[in-house]
Amino acid sequence: MVVTGLGQCCWDTLAEVEEYPSPDSKAESGQWVEQGGGPAATALVTVARLGLQCRFAGVVGDDAAGALIRHALHAEGIDVTHLLTRPGAASQRAFIMVERTGGRRTIVWQRPTGAHLAPAELEEPFWSGSAFLHLDGLMEEASLHGVREARRRGIPVMVDAGRMRPGMRELAKLCDYLVAAEQFFLDLGWDGSEEQFARLADGLGAPTVTVTLGDRGSLTRHDGTTCHVPAFPVTTLDTTGAGDVFHGGYLFGLLKGWPLRETVIFASAAAALSCLHLGAQRGAPRLDEVIRFLVDRGIPVPAV
Amino acid sequence: MVVTGLGQCCWDTLAEVEEYPSPDSKAESGQWVEQGGGPAATALVTVARLGLQCRFAGVVGDDAAGALIRHALHAEGIDVTHLLTRPGAASQRAFIMVERTGGRRTIVWQRPTGAHLAPAELEEPFWSGSAFLHLDGLMEEASLHGVREARRRGIPVMVDAGRMRPGMRELAKLCDYLVAAEQFFLDLGWDGSEEQFARLADGLGAPTVTVTLGDRGSLTRHDGTTCHVPAFPVTTLDTTGAGDVFHGGYLFGLLKGWPLRETVIFASAAAALSCLHLGAQRGAPRLDEVIRFLVDRGIPVPAV
Repeated sequence: MVVTGLGQCCWDTLAEVEEYPSPDSKAESGQWVEQGGGPAATALVTVARLGLQCRFAGVVGDDAAGALIRHALHAEGIDVTHLLTRPGAASQRAFIMVERTGGRRTIVWQRPTGAHLAPAELEEPFWSGSAFLHLDGLMEEASLHGVREARRRGIPVMVDAGRMRPGMRELAKLCDYLVAAEQFFLDLGWDGSEEQFARLADGLGAPTVTVTLGDRGSLTRHDGTTCHVPAFPVTTLDTTGAGDVFHGGYLFGLLKGWPLRETVIFASAAAALSCLHLGAQRGAPRLDEVIRFLVDRGIPVPAV
Repeated sequence: MVVTGLGQCCWDTLAEVEEYPSPDSKAESGQWVEQGGGPAATALVTVARLGLQCRFAGVVGDDAAGALIRHALHAEGIDVTHLLTRPGAASQRAFIMVERTGGRRTIVWQRPTGAHLAPAELEEPFWSGSAFLHLDGLMEEASLHGVREARRRGIPVMVDAGRMRPGMRELAKLCDYLVAAEQFFLDLGWDGSEEQFARLADGLGAPTVTVTLGDRGSLTRHDGTTCHVPAFPVTTLDTTGAGDVFHGGYLFGLLKGWPLRETVIFASAAAALSCLHLGAQRGAPRLDEVIRFLVDRGIPVPAV
């Protein structure tokens, strides 16, 4: 049983600053922290840390950042055979300034210059043993091919909808689980009410739709009912990647066959734990950490 | 004949942004540019590109940035025997956001964690054949030792005074050329007038004192007279390191035995050329570029 992921990976540098610097100034930061990031890659790192086998498809450049991204995923035990290196291309990178006080997070990022994954590059070995496909829709053509191919093979699909992008309507229609950031629903014109969320979610086509709302928790729409799961209050150091870790926890619960509500609670706990650390992937918790977190709060965990 | 330098070196990452991002936002930048920086190191890279032999003393960590700093200096032909690597330490790094429109430059930097250069680490081979010592005063103890040792050996000393720092008063008293940034004079309470500049400069102790004022040029005080040299108007892309390149050009003129005014004009031309490129060291010009720049403007260049 393998969770296959398809999408974006990048190399993040995080710098904690007392306060976000004003333009034209020079600010000393704490020691920089470097690690992998990117929505699909971070979700898969979470799934791997929770103990499941993973395989990731994406592209990097043949620069130092590309080598670091590959090495970090490989070190988590993720199969990176389908992480392709584009010669002469730059990998995606981000510099993330996190405020020590105030918690604001400002990102300057460099677009990768390598060609997107092509459908022809997702051949048979990528699908071998796949129990779930997770994708972030950032490579439109490959994503649409991936979701269609997964359907054909009877593999369930989760789509991480960060915001409305070309192809996202189609992906939402074809997938089994659409787990969206608040921005995606704002892009659809959401007024923030539960009623309108239900209408918008039902119109997307996916049988299960979740929207994550940061410290306001999440809303999940399934089978004509809406369920609100509050966020766990934690002393947040950095929310980078918290949504991606949520996806990883969500995938884990689904693969364990848990009920939807317990799955979302588990995902929320994993996301909360990730906020205790700087960066996207460093804070992705291990299974025993999530279980202890839930048990400490008197929340029963289904059998793993 | 070798120019010896002592001070700070760092590894800079530059990102051109349309506009400096507002807090809590996500901004796409142009492709990042990485290169060496640091006041003393950049001045020496300039001297090396102008064709003179150089030797640099400083410290880096045993991280990737340290290796990149060392490699970049070595690639310029600079003797890095006295660039010491501190095990387990982080090198100085900076992330520099340069605005495409507006030209504002905002820096987030990480302090190096390795121990400063100790006086005992500046032994005989460092001084061998030295015709000039250049230092930026960022390692107080080593700088004070260096300037005293240079005097004892009859080696002239230029001090780059970026701002008022511990030990800077003493360095200013002991050196031959104090070439300061505007901030250093503002720290002394300067009101911006030529008259007060003359008084403050005469009080410092160095026989020759220059202050660089960006696009307003520079003021030089020597032997009871003040001379203003205007800046060359250029279409500035980035001013990072322009002051350091000015120091390098200044050192070159002095070593060629040129009159002070011609030396400062040459330094201004080198600094202007450096503003056409992103980053500190990439834009440091070669000798033929500076000569062509001056000749194109009808300015005679003394014999090199």
